Amino acid sequence: MIQSENFIGFSKSSESDIKITSFNAKTHEALPTYFFTATENELNRAVSKAKSAFPVFSNLAMNKRGDFLEQIAIEIEAIGDRLIEQAVLESGLPEARFIGERGRTTGQLRLFAKVLRDGNWVEASIDTPKPDRSPLPKPDIRQVLTAIGPIAIFTASNFPLAFSTAGGDTASAFAAGCPVIIKAHESHLGVNALVSSAIVRAAKKTAMPDGVFSSLNGSGYETGSQLVMHSEIKGVAFTGSFNGGKTLYDIAQKRKEPIPVFAEMGSINPVIFLPSKLENEGDQLATMYAGSITMGVGQFCTNPGLLIALKSEGLEKFKTVLSDKLSALPMHTMLNRGIETNFQKLRSEMLKQIGVNTFSSKDKLIPTLAFVSGADFIKNPNLHKEVFGPYSLLVECNDKEEIMDVVNTLEGQLTGTVMADTSDFEEYSELFPLLQNKVGRLIYNSTPTGVEVCYSMHHGGPFPATTDARFTSVGANAIKRFVRPICFQNAPQQLLPDSLKDANPLDIFRLVDGILSKKEI
Amino acid sequence: MIQSENFIGFSKSSESDIKITSFNAKTHEALPTYFFTATENELNRAVSKAKSAFPVFSNLAMNKRGDFLEQIAIEIEAIGDRLIEQAVLESGLPEARFIGERGRTTGQLRLFAKVLRDGNWVEASIDTPKPDRSPLPKPDIRQVLTAIGPIAIFTASNFPLAFSTAGGDTASAFAAGCPVIIKAHESHLGVNALVSSAIVRAAKKTAMPDGVFSSLNGSGYETGSQLVMHSEIKGVAFTGSFNGGKTLYDIAQKRKEPIPVFAEMGSINPVIFLPSKLENEGDQLATMYAGSITMGVGQFCTNPGLLIALKSEGLEKFKTVLSDKLSALPMHTMLNRGIETNFQKLRSEMLKQIGVNTFSSKDKLIPTLAFVSGADFIKNPNLHKEVFGPYSLLVECNDKEEIMDVVNTLEGQLTGTVMADTSDFEEYSELFPLLQNKVGRLIYNSTPTGVEVCYSMHHGGPFPATTDARFTSVGANAIKRFVRPICFQNAPQQLLPDSLKDANPLDIFRLVDGILSKKEI
Repeated sequence: MIQSENFIGFSKSSESDIKITSFNAKTHEALPTYFFTATENELNRAVSKAKSAFPVFSNLAMNKRGDFLEQIAIEIEAIGDRLIEQAVLESGLPEARFIGERGRTTGQLRLFAKVLRDGNWVEASIDTPKPDRSPLPKPDIRQVLTAIGPIAIFTASNFPLAFSTAGGDTASAFAAGCPVIIKAHESHLGVNALVSSAIVRAAKKTAMPDGVFSSLNGSGYETGSQLVMHSEIKGVAFTGSFNGGKTLYDIAQKRKEPIPVFAEMGSINPVIFLPSKLENEGDQLATMYAGSITMGVGQFCTNPGLLIALKSEGLEKFKTVLSDKLSALPMHTMLNRGIETNFQKLRSEMLKQIGVNTFSSKDKLIPTLAFVSGADFIKNPNLHKEVFGPYSLLVECNDKEEIMDVVNTLEGQLTGTVMADTSDFEEYSELFPLLQNKVGRLIYNSTPTGVEVCYSMHHGGPFPATTDARFTSVGANAIKRFVRPICFQNAPQQLLPDSLKDANPLDIFRLVDGILSKKEI
Repeated sequence: MIQSENFIGFSKSSESDIKITSFNAKTHEALPTYFFTATENELNRAVSKAKSAFPVFSNLAMNKRGDFLEQIAIEIEAIGDRLIEQAVLESGLPEARFIGERGRTTGQLRLFAKVLRDGNWVEASIDTPKPDRSPLPKPDIRQVLTAIGPIAIFTASNFPLAFSTAGGDTASAFAAGCPVIIKAHESHLGVNALVSSAIVRAAKKTAMPDGVFSSLNGSGYETGSQLVMHSEIKGVAFTGSFNGGKTLYDIAQKRKEPIPVFAEMGSINPVIFLPSKLENEGDQLATMYAGSITMGVGQFCTNPGLLIALKSEGLEKFKTVLSDKLSALPMHTMLNRGIETNFQKLRSEMLKQIGVNTFSSKDKLIPTLAFVSGADFIKNPNLHKEVFGPYSLLVECNDKEEIMDVVNTLEGQLTGTVMADTSDFEEYSELFPLLQNKVGRLIYNSTPTGVEVCYSMHHGGPFPATTDARFTSVGANAIKRFVRPICFQNAPQQLLPDSLKDANPLDIFRLVDGILSKKEI
């Protein structure tokens, strides 16, 4: 049973006369379940409950929040096939993908539970006092990370599970100690309701405070901007388009109290094929990249939308093989009608730009490889835009300097990839620091698609890839988005959090007078 | 000899016809040395040099940047009395203060050199590959912090050395690997020129690239906004007024590529005197706070501008003693005519607000203690504004609930202080988490003035105390403002920074598969 009402903490609410549905991605027909959009009153109640839950939730022992995260994973698994079926219906993506994505989602929840039980992430630091210091005694100063408050999360169309209701943003915000209010994605309202129910069940079973989680249906702009403008919302996470993310960012910066917005807005993810590698392994590279460009119907923020290489015989061969492989692949259903329309429109605009060519008919909607000269690419900013879908542009350069110039003109990117062998590494040594400056993740001899969930992952990058290059939305460090340092001076032991108590009851690493150790004070 | 020209990297430049001077703080007379304001052309050259210096400077071995910082400290000390005399002349503050402040400044430079030699601050993290993992192999993923680019720094009027040209912002930006462009403060152009010369000498002696440092004279608004809008500036640090900081923040957010602005904009720094403590130690507290309110003529961002207490006999006594002590203290010269005029104006506006009273004559310009009821304070946002100077407002509350209400209405603060004894801690246990939520540093039984430079210090706080509560402008963590993570996937050893190489040549702590250790891979 899918809940039609909004989730206002542990309560259901359906005050609005406006009801919406999501759509069958393949047929574009409305699905039978209706969802009530959230009224401003309901939104205010959700935020008010989150505000009340915050001091309780953020001060819970970390392992209690760990229990909550693990219970969410269990509840999601308990939904069983019903969740997978709904995701397939609303997204058009295949069942196998969602079995994988569900594993990624529950894996993320369990990773953050592990991070909490480990406890080192709080960056505890203690400077011991020196009462005899002259001319002034040195006080006792301690610092640790603390949660910032209720967070508004905008879920992603392209990952209905892993970047949505119980995705990485929610898992990391909960881990940090922040209540979450979800703005449900219109494309997968059913999946959202199923997962929201799982979170509420988990919250009740693990005795979390009412208000730790709410989920609102509504339009991205109206409900979304109401949420971001609410004075009790203290941070925002978003995954989606540049326009969507930048709009929320601008709203948040115009508030009386500006708040952080972590918008992951996508990228063209340049891949540089260096000459020796291309010459020796062109066919394998073409196969690898045909797969990467079409993975998830090209609907990944790390999709390789820009290929860069030196003109050569090897490149001619690679181009033909890659183009043929792409043409031979079927075009699958895209996530929703808006995304499909937008893909067709942007792709056809791109193919009309000066100097842009393809081997196949320009009108056929297929996975597309286009190509253009380095000179034409450099002077045309339109070609630097993301085409969300199975499309990639190959930039053919005359010499090494032109490759450097192309990289120099790029905007900030989530990823940059270099396909190279040993001789390329020597020949192109200036390229790597240049590319590093433009990206959040620098990949060697692999594809940008496939974002590993681990401790060292950074899924972020200089603007316009994200609104804040200092933070990641994937991996253990995602928790850092929802905290700030708090410093205590001469605090009595009983008023310090466990992480800072003399006896180190959490047995964590702490910086003691600048030296990392687990020792007691 | 004080340089009149702008410092454009290692070159002097004086293209403008407009010349400015700083003023004798005591007499308000123009000082004899003229300074050329920076033209837009000069500003562009400074940024262009910084851009060229960036890849070299940011990729230097950390101990080389450490040498640079230590050499700056040596060069500053080598200026000798000339620097102290100039600072006294331009600020009106006493010599002893500048001998102390110079020590703080060179101490900060040496602290960051130590942080660099230690190396742990880069937060290296390595996830080792699992080629046999099913269904997909796990790649090799590594992450470390990397510098963001040229930084514009706006220096503070109230700390001509420690928060200025070679102050904490500059020291931490250099430590991170970022070139610095200073917008010199109009109040201490002479001190700026002396310290800028010291930095340039140190840069040449330690073979830093030309462009690692520039210093521009000019108006805060015109030169300042040109700098912040320049597309090659990647971050901004500022210490000063709310209006100044918020203006720079707004400019930076409206750029095509928004950039981080770390503006430390001051605070009223509430101090809560709890009843038992006040009853037992009223006289000592009055002495302590008379000193804190007037320290540096009240011109500290941590000046205790708001005192909160429960009405009682003890409070009446404390109020009288504190007021008498303040009245007995002489009023010293303020930093410049603008600050003095503003202090007089704001102080007299405050004293006209409903319910505000003092013991002494309202027109006398002295260190001032005003008082007001909790109810009047809560309903009047004007009373929540900072009066920069020796002024403090005592809020007299009827009961515990009113104290909680007063704290609840406060905006974000750099610090919050609680003066309490054991019985107060028990009685007021709900107060501490509430106050913690409003501040960057929570102090017990001490004064907010005196910001220790150490590893655990956090000198920042929720808006409007700063524009970014997640970062500090004092202490070792100040370096974190000028870096972002960079992630490497499957990178060959020779293309990794030393911090991430298998052999751990820097011998630093790294998170290896989630566990902190110094082990080799």
